[in-house]
Amino acid sequence: MTAAPGTIKKLVNDPANVSTDLVDAFADAHPDLVRRVAERVLVRAEQPTDKVGIVSGGGSGHEPAFLGYVGAGCVDAVAVGNIFAAPPPDAILASIEHANRGRGVLLIYGNYSGDVMNCRLAVRKAAAAGIDVRQLFVTDDLASAPADEADRRRGIAGDAMVFKLAGAAAEAGASLDEVEAIGRTANARTRTIGVALSSAELPGASKPIFTTAPDEMEVGLGVHGEPGIATAKLGTADEVGTQLAERLLADLDCRAGTSVALLVNGLGATPLLEQYLVHRAVSRHLAASGISVHRSMVGEFVTSLQMAGLSVTLTVLDDELRALLDAPVRTAAWCQ
Amino acid sequence: MTAAPGTIKKLVNDPANVSTDLVDAFADAHPDLVRRVAERVLVRAEQPTDKVGIVSGGGSGHEPAFLGYVGAGCVDAVAVGNIFAAPPPDAILASIEHANRGRGVLLIYGNYSGDVMNCRLAVRKAAAAGIDVRQLFVTDDLASAPADEADRRRGIAGDAMVFKLAGAAAEAGASLDEVEAIGRTANARTRTIGVALSSAELPGASKPIFTTAPDEMEVGLGVHGEPGIATAKLGTADEVGTQLAERLLADLDCRAGTSVALLVNGLGATPLLEQYLVHRAVSRHLAASGISVHRSMVGEFVTSLQMAGLSVTLTVLDDELRALLDAPVRTAAWCQ
Repeated sequence: MTAAPGTIKKLVNDPANVSTDLVDAFADAHPDLVRRVAERVLVRAEQPTDKVGIVSGGGSGHEPAFLGYVGAGCVDAVAVGNIFAAPPPDAILASIEHANRGRGVLLIYGNYSGDVMNCRLAVRKAAAAGIDVRQLFVTDDLASAPADEADRRRGIAGDAMVFKLAGAAAEAGASLDEVEAIGRTANARTRTIGVALSSAELPGASKPIFTTAPDEMEVGLGVHGEPGIATAKLGTADEVGTQLAERLLADLDCRAGTSVALLVNGLGATPLLEQYLVHRAVSRHLAASGISVHRSMVGEFVTSLQMAGLSVTLTVLDDELRALLDAPVRTAAWCQ
Repeated sequence: MTAAPGTIKKLVNDPANVSTDLVDAFADAHPDLVRRVAERVLVRAEQPTDKVGIVSGGGSGHEPAFLGYVGAGCVDAVAVGNIFAAPPPDAILASIEHANRGRGVLLIYGNYSGDVMNCRLAVRKAAAAGIDVRQLFVTDDLASAPADEADRRRGIAGDAMVFKLAGAAAEAGASLDEVEAIGRTANARTRTIGVALSSAELPGASKPIFTTAPDEMEVGLGVHGEPGIATAKLGTADEVGTQLAERLLADLDCRAGTSVALLVNGLGATPLLEQYLVHRAVSRHLAASGISVHRSMVGEFVTSLQMAGLSVTLTVLDDELRALLDAPVRTAAWCQ
């Protein structure tokens, strides 16, 4: 691609094929982890025959989400849509069929109208074919709707926490009812809020989705360039981390003595160095509130192309979720 | 930080303290992996008592390098310098002392004059204290000097390959002579070349280190903004991947039938999506040359703040290196 003046330069081929190119390229790079079974569908290279299937997917442009979560202890099959677009229903259906091993399938997608609509179409066909599929739409983004309309909230980096916890339960041999319950509990106890310092720019586009002033940041911005809840002065890492922690604790039932998972997610162009500085500020604020961090993840989990910024996710843990979080996982995006 | 107009916005505190803040924040996030033993020194949380020590380090701004490589099967201790600056000799010395368990220490740094000078000062003191330390300066960057002056070449993403292979040998109980030999073989068989699409910008700086035209890329650029060997028209992912593969094969003794490790390294702001597309182009070119990829790594391994671009690294493997590459590793930067 020759970039037009003023646009962000990209290393892609035909922008129209970028998502199917990605699926093919990812499968080529990781034959030990995944197998490509259709143009937009990847499945785990070696799926045990006796477990509940976990399927996910979504638009591309969020890498390592969603294909990076396929592997042991996490997701069994994904469907991949175009940039920032839901996968087509037939790809979702194929992912469900491949993940089904006779014990049922839990579908975990971010809560976006396009994804929800296409998932429902696919699930209806899967059910007609006799597959027991449950649907869970992740709603961790507290900025996208008020608390009393939490089911309207979007799914952002909290997706990764729900994949990990439900995936660990499925890997351990839990029933579909149990895996679904874990997934719903994980979602209910997870909140995310982010800041954007610059916008993503779509392949083939001539300008960014939005612009921010040189000394400002967008608070609560979505991973597709959805508007934030506020424009604020850009602060230091300590100031921003503290503000984000305060907003998370105001929305989440998380009192002193609680143990949490803390995930700092780079949105694409923000260096790890900055992510770690914000992580420390959040961690200090939690410690001052009597909340202990059981496990931290810092890096890119759900991105928005080359958007600058980051999000912070908290999941309130109990003994069961702690054990599931600590269980082994082997995927491109999350390995421990 | 309030960014001046025209500069890249950053989430940091006082730019003067960014590297020591990073060391503290990283230790806070990963107590299961590392322990902070001095302002600029991190050591592995649990180091076996009977192994050869592996130490590394370098400037900050390259995260996850170098602190992200501390952990089982990799590096035992690191010293962290200021942004793009060598660590001070006393920090390097402390890292050597902590990594020493009586079987000697292999020091692995990128080949930069500042790092080499400070390492030599530290090693002299360590030797005077009776520690057997060997020094290996990684020289994978083929663009930084011609093949007949290979010892002048810089170390870039190939650092990660040398850490992994020498680290696996040390973890398996090899002697210092053996670990050093593995490290030197790994370095001799590793080459990297990169392209930059945009420049890094230092915290507190008012402008980028360099600029590129909207339709151009710098080929062979270093991770501190060192000039490249050529300015070229920006191509597609397929074109760029093929060009980089050709340059690597022209410099490396790697004929048909060989097995290699292939590492595609994002330099900071380039999305994973683009890294995978370039990976596929390299992989196809290798396959057409009769070279098989034993293992692929795609992601950020040695970055340059928020520079856009990527590098491609090849390491020629034999049976011994293949087994070392496949051995378990558990660090923030590389886990398998």
